[in-house]
Amino acid sequence: MSSQPISLSAQSDPVALAAELIRCPSVTPAEGGAIDLIQRWLEPLGFACERLTFADEGLPPVDNLYARLGTGAPHFCFAGHTDVVPAGSEAAWSVPPFQPAVVDGMLTGRGAADMKGAIAAFLAALARFTENGKPAGSISLLITGDEEGMAINGTRKLVKWLQENGETIDHCIVGEPSNPEIMGDMIKVGRRGSFNAQLTVSGIQGHVAYPHHADNPVPKLTALLAALTGEPLDDGYERFQPSNLEVTALATPPLAENVIPGEAGARFNVRFNPNWTGASLEAHLRDRLEEAAAAHDGGIDWTLSARTSGEAFLTTDTAYTDLLADCVEQHTGRRPELSTSGGTSDARFIKDIAPVAEFGLVGATMHKINEQVATGDIHLLTAIYHTILTRYFDAS
Amino acid sequence: MSSQPISLSAQSDPVALAAELIRCPSVTPAEGGAIDLIQRWLEPLGFACERLTFADEGLPPVDNLYARLGTGAPHFCFAGHTDVVPAGSEAAWSVPPFQPAVVDGMLTGRGAADMKGAIAAFLAALARFTENGKPAGSISLLITGDEEGMAINGTRKLVKWLQENGETIDHCIVGEPSNPEIMGDMIKVGRRGSFNAQLTVSGIQGHVAYPHHADNPVPKLTALLAALTGEPLDDGYERFQPSNLEVTALATPPLAENVIPGEAGARFNVRFNPNWTGASLEAHLRDRLEEAAAAHDGGIDWTLSARTSGEAFLTTDTAYTDLLADCVEQHTGRRPELSTSGGTSDARFIKDIAPVAEFGLVGATMHKINEQVATGDIHLLTAIYHTILTRYFDAS
Ligand SMILES: [Zn+2]
Ligand SMILES: [Zn+2]
Repeated sequence: MSSQPISLSAQSDPVALAAELIRCPSVTPAEGGAIDLIQRWLEPLGFACERLTFADEGLPPVDNLYARLGTGAPHFCFAGHTDVVPAGSEAAWSVPPFQPAVVDGMLTGRGAADMKGAIAAFLAALARFTENGKPAGSISLLITGDEEGMAINGTRKLVKWLQENGETIDHCIVGEPSNPEIMGDMIKVGRRGSFNAQLTVSGIQGHVAYPHHADNPVPKLTALLAALTGEPLDDGYERFQPSNLEVTALATPPLAENVIPGEAGARFNVRFNPNWTGASLEAHLRDRLEEAAAAHDGGIDWTLSARTSGEAFLTTDTAYTDLLADCVEQHTGRRPELSTSGGTSDARFIKDIAPVAEFGLVGATMHKINEQVATGDIHLLTAIYHTILTRYFDAS
Repeated sequence: MSSQPISLSAQSDPVALAAELIRCPSVTPAEGGAIDLIQRWLEPLGFACERLTFADEGLPPVDNLYARLGTGAPHFCFAGHTDVVPAGSEAAWSVPPFQPAVVDGMLTGRGAADMKGAIAAFLAALARFTENGKPAGSISLLITGDEEGMAINGTRKLVKWLQENGETIDHCIVGEPSNPEIMGDMIKVGRRGSFNAQLTVSGIQGHVAYPHHADNPVPKLTALLAALTGEPLDDGYERFQPSNLEVTALATPPLAENVIPGEAGARFNVRFNPNWTGASLEAHLRDRLEEAAAAHDGGIDWTLSARTSGEAFLTTDTAYTDLLADCVEQHTGRRPELSTSGGTSDARFIKDIAPVAEFGLVGATMHKINEQVATGDIHLLTAIYHTILTRYFDAS
């Protein structure tokens, strides 16, 4: 597939191009021909393309692309990922997940919403925009094949590479499906941070008939969990919801039913707003645990192992986010909410080098069986992206 | 091994006989030659031996023995099991676990304490007691090969068989290692009941970034566990400790770290005194759960699956238990505590047909690596059992 020329229809039609991308089986972290396809589209438009393969011990190498048109400022960047989550049960799909089809106005296939449809829309918008010559500045695409997986050999390293190579970006848009229900719902202008931790409580294993010879860690664990979840972490922050802690797992070792376990553990995740950094949050949670352990009769022997997979951030360049909102409103008649809700995305890495926002298709079916988007929405998004490019370079 | 004649030394020496029994690898539920050995010992003494093989769907058949000397009343019964728990890491033993040896005065091998040593002591006491003719009544042995395992095809069915065959027993002693530290410590005159349950709470699985679309069952489970463990179940009962609940396991389904589980479960065991039956305890715990669920914001969707593996009981025939205590005191200089502590035993089945108490060796090393008993204690127990037989039939 990746060595075939792009069909004529795909060159003019963002829906056909989205379908071509979906036919590339780029289940994370496989390239599947998707990045090749994008590169073959960009080169005729004059883009200088750098293919960057990153690897890390124990992980498969990942293919990435940095493509730039022009050398001057301002420099506008579109960021996206070609990798998709696995299809799940193929039999449950109404069409084969990598053989997309348009049914009742919906393009159905894995990645239609997240986010091959948005990449196709941006490519089509670019083609239209560059018909009138090069931009008064630069346009680039930062495309990774490692967003849905480990996210170690993708945008994280692309950003580092840009910094090391003196590539500065002025503003960035990420093509994630930012609209919950309908086009124009929402632009994401920040994200909560994500903090994962494992809490382990030690006791003394023993027989249920002789509890005085044992020390059951379970009541201690539940006391610590009560301390973690009892009081809200905060009341929210500007555009952010309150930080939220969810216990995602409980575990004890596999033992006979008459044995008091020697250890009990819980895993939890916190989505946190900019009231916190991962480090300040961890310090606060440790304080809560220490206090609860000290208040517990006989004390509690606990350990916490924590990892922050993304810090909270908010894009405060309102001139930029207002420009994006204006363009969305112009085409949808809706003033999009500037939101920080939802899961993490590669914007968490890009925010270190440029003001970044996310706008793409409707995400209602992303990662699900029968992922789909309205073909009209792909055309609409193409028009929105085209207007963003036009107004961005007009304004500068 | 089981087809070899018993050595001469074993015929006169309870320690040698214990060693012969330990050499039979009767890891539960294997017979290993141990019951054959006992039968070959009893037949020359005039015992009528019934071998009873019980089986149950899906379980291996288990060999049991009912041996009776005499037909009249009173009828005194010794109950015991020949099966042993697995040896564990054989390399960790100071002697091979099924090749017993006496080192520094201790007979070491799997089953030395629990309870081949006690069976050997009773057999030796019997030989001495019957030298003076038959008892003024009956003596029987109820020997099972299924105490340490499922306990389905052992004493439970032996008791039923006795009832169906019109065999009545007046008093019973079980040879379990009842002494925690030293001979004469303790006679067990009852046992707490044992109740196992699985508590499951349902929620709605979802992504940690969208907690309002999910319903985390973990805080609900911890609220229910707090209701189960918050107030004591009772303050004790006569010779019994307070009933005690221990949570023995916590679990959630295996999921990615960013997923709120749809279900959370806990397993617990209650050791309960005669304030409760299994049924009344279950009803009380369900009341606690219902009340806590109703008090919880939004309610709690829970299920409880419970099983009572033994009811609590107390042997109230003080003439019998005083006789046993007198005999123990006569040989040890210690007045044994009449206790109901510790784990379950087959006495839970026998209590339905006769007053039952447990007295045997020192249990400190039972089920452990290097299980051992002092050879002197085996001789001492032989003397105690002999005195019990003598005084029991003298008193009647
Ligand atoms: Zn995505
Ligand atoms: Zn035992």
